[in-house]
Amino acid sequence: MSLPLENFFKQVDALSEPFIDRLRKAVAIPSISAEDERRPDVFKMGDFLASELEAVGAQVEKRYLGKQPHKEHLDLPPVIVARYGHDKSKRTISVYGHYDVQPAQKEDGWATEPFELSIDENGRMYGRGSTDDKGPVLGWLNVIEAHRKANIDFPVNLLMCFEGMEEYGSEGLDEFVREESQKYFAGTDAVCISDNYWLGTEKPCLTYGIRGCNYYSVCISGPGQDLHSGVFGGSTQEPMTDLVRVLGSLVDTHGAIEIPGLMDLVAPLSDEEIATYSGISYSMNNLYESLGSTTAVFDNEQQTLMARQALSCQWRYPSLSIHGIEGAFSAPGAKTVIPAKVIGKFSIRTVPDMQPDDVDELVFKFVKEEFAKLGSKNTLEVSLQHSGKWWVANPKHWNYNAASRAAEHVWGVKPDLTREGGRFTSILSISG
Amino acid sequence: MSLPLENFFKQVDALSEPFIDRLRKAVAIPSISAEDERRPDVFKMGDFLASELEAVGAQVEKRYLGKQPHKEHLDLPPVIVARYGHDKSKRTISVYGHYDVQPAQKEDGWATEPFELSIDENGRMYGRGSTDDKGPVLGWLNVIEAHRKANIDFPVNLLMCFEGMEEYGSEGLDEFVREESQKYFAGTDAVCISDNYWLGTEKPCLTYGIRGCNYYSVCISGPGQDLHSGVFGGSTQEPMTDLVRVLGSLVDTHGAIEIPGLMDLVAPLSDEEIATYSGISYSMNNLYESLGSTTAVFDNEQQTLMARQALSCQWRYPSLSIHGIEGAFSAPGAKTVIPAKVIGKFSIRTVPDMQPDDVDELVFKFVKEEFAKLGSKNTLEVSLQHSGKWWVANPKHWNYNAASRAAEHVWGVKPDLTREGGRFTSILSISG
Ligand SMILES: [Zn+2]
Ligand SMILES: [Zn+2]
Ligand SMILES: [Zn+2]
Ligand SMILES: [Zn+2]
Repeated sequence: MSLPLENFFKQVDALSEPFIDRLRKAVAIPSISAEDERRPDVFKMGDFLASELEAVGAQVEKRYLGKQPHKEHLDLPPVIVARYGHDKSKRTISVYGHYDVQPAQKEDGWATEPFELSIDENGRMYGRGSTDDKGPVLGWLNVIEAHRKANIDFPVNLLMCFEGMEEYGSEGLDEFVREESQKYFAGTDAVCISDNYWLGTEKPCLTYGIRGCNYYSVCISGPGQDLHSGVFGGSTQEPMTDLVRVLGSLVDTHGAIEIPGLMDLVAPLSDEEIATYSGISYSMNNLYESLGSTTAVFDNEQQTLMARQALSCQWRYPSLSIHGIEGAFSAPGAKTVIPAKVIGKFSIRTVPDMQPDDVDELVFKFVKEEFAKLGSKNTLEVSLQHSGKWWVANPKHWNYNAASRAAEHVWGVKPDLTREGGRFTSILSISG
Repeated sequence: MSLPLENFFKQVDALSEPFIDRLRKAVAIPSISAEDERRPDVFKMGDFLASELEAVGAQVEKRYLGKQPHKEHLDLPPVIVARYGHDKSKRTISVYGHYDVQPAQKEDGWATEPFELSIDENGRMYGRGSTDDKGPVLGWLNVIEAHRKANIDFPVNLLMCFEGMEEYGSEGLDEFVREESQKYFAGTDAVCISDNYWLGTEKPCLTYGIRGCNYYSVCISGPGQDLHSGVFGGSTQEPMTDLVRVLGSLVDTHGAIEIPGLMDLVAPLSDEEIATYSGISYSMNNLYESLGSTTAVFDNEQQTLMARQALSCQWRYPSLSIHGIEGAFSAPGAKTVIPAKVIGKFSIRTVPDMQPDDVDELVFKFVKEEFAKLGSKNTLEVSLQHSGKWWVANPKHWNYNAASRAAEHVWGVKPDLTREGGRFTSILSISG
């Protein structure tokens, strides 16, 4: 190990208490982007992050994104952008993370208070956002601080981009990134996203592919307004009756997508690709732990094989999920309304070589055919709500090699090379 | 016309401005029981009603029902009970109505401001609650006031019961009525519900039957918590996939209930009963107007016959409506969550001679069988959320005769005798 690197790691160890304290402060702010009443906490977390970034010497800007679409009474939290270093002789890495978190309540089954950082006897830390994504975001601040305190030159220029709406669909981010890709993020040599999932709990991983996502709405309408089922049940055709049938035709309980032609768009699996799946650290138990259940699609016999199948489904094949219905009764309790207009939402995770437009065409045709079979007088409209294309990088790129060597150095094991769900496509676009 | 009656009608005409003004004030209070932020307006409307009742000489009490189930941050609005007259030689009529209204917004397609009483060139009044149910409720105050001002003895004792949660499932009312049926409402000779629907817009109607309602929940759960579809789509079985299929098996687009044996529970249609449907004022256009669309179950050819069929479906046969799904994404926009636990809600309107328990048995068996067919690893639970039995009265009872004569006197036409949806069964129980 070179001397500067040795000094760097010493400094990291020396700073471990302040680093943990920084995470503790961040976890204590319940910056839940999906809950309206927590919006002030999301802003508070943005302020905290900005001032911590300034404290380690970054040039920080808060970029406001206006009102939240569909919830105009709420302001979107700012994207915190920050630059560290401006040396033309160095490479420039753009870094993405998010400072909002998902909802969490002790009653949901947490063993500890979700918004208090708890440390167990093995030194593992628990708390909402500790891994997704406050920990990884603060990692960048920590690495800057350790370099400064150890008096070691920082090896790259960093352009950081930390948003506050990731857990609610990254509202406003796409536009922001499109605007800024040739401005704030100009000169980016590579992008690094600090927001992925390990396969297990022991081995780090590097993600080199992300599935795309085509998100659809199926709107079925009939009556001019919601009706009382006691009065009109039996004399009107009900949009919900049709919608559950149309949604029920899309995918079976084992995840097989029933839209003809869709699987033909998927790139064939080569032997070379199969080989990359060997040696990956994964077992069915990893999946069961993540799911919090054993309701996996594949059986738990022949674990290795099955795990590989499950993995390739997570990365390699498309999937279709039904997310919910807008316009119907969705609260607890019992309401006897016949909804006049209901909007089913589903999405398809896309993979190479599926072209988003081809997917749309097959989906629209199938949904319309299934609806026509019902012989309903209601009206159906199916539309694409948004589309993000899949992305696959070359895992032998210099940036992956550097990350892989660094991870192996720290963890003593080569990281898994993984693919993932479907996000961040707009951010990835800035690496050109 | 007897002299007192003549004086009474003169007084009604003389009071028409104050009567309209009373309705105007009531419509202006947006007492929407289904919207949390409008709850103070529901209370305000309760206060207004109570003070108006006092002003006409009734003895008023506000009966508070505690917190709202599933929404413990909200107080239930009080039931306003009021007595007018306490003369042992007279009959006692218990009267029901509600002072809450359904949501309404100009954007929903209103031609006028919903919370402003508007009067058109024909003297017809528009405004949320003008017919459902503030107008009918205030009718009782008006009739008392006109008697008093005309100095005519009121012919019966009135026990009034006006609730503020009808449009949100009459939360708390059942218990209240059960408690009070032998206390506050003791001595009731007949019940009068001022909250029904005319078939058209010209002819009044008297309702002598109400369908029952069995309300069911189907809960399907799998993963331990909500999952990200990008990460887990394709490797977990998804409760929503199963739920839309189970809900899709219940009823077809034409309203035919697919639960075997259910229709066998319905009383056969006798010739005598068929005869009662003749002479009813109704056309398909009445139905289309109410629906705000032409998406009726039956075609519009042979209007009379079809109208009769549609009517008997509204009154005479069971229907099944799917109301919505709890636990899934239901807001506007796009969220890519895989819900871990979803609860489908549907209800069956029941008619003579369906026994609620028999219906439960058939429903539970069918839902479990349909779920079993899927071969899913998820878990299903189906349960009855609440049950209200159908009710049919004798339309030749003295109270109907009196109402019919009174309606004919005012409108110059015999009122339609109708049956309706499914509500008020608890109130009806107090007439013994
Ligand atoms: Zn994240
Ligand atoms: Zn997340
Ligand atoms: Zn009503
Ligand atoms: Zn109503």
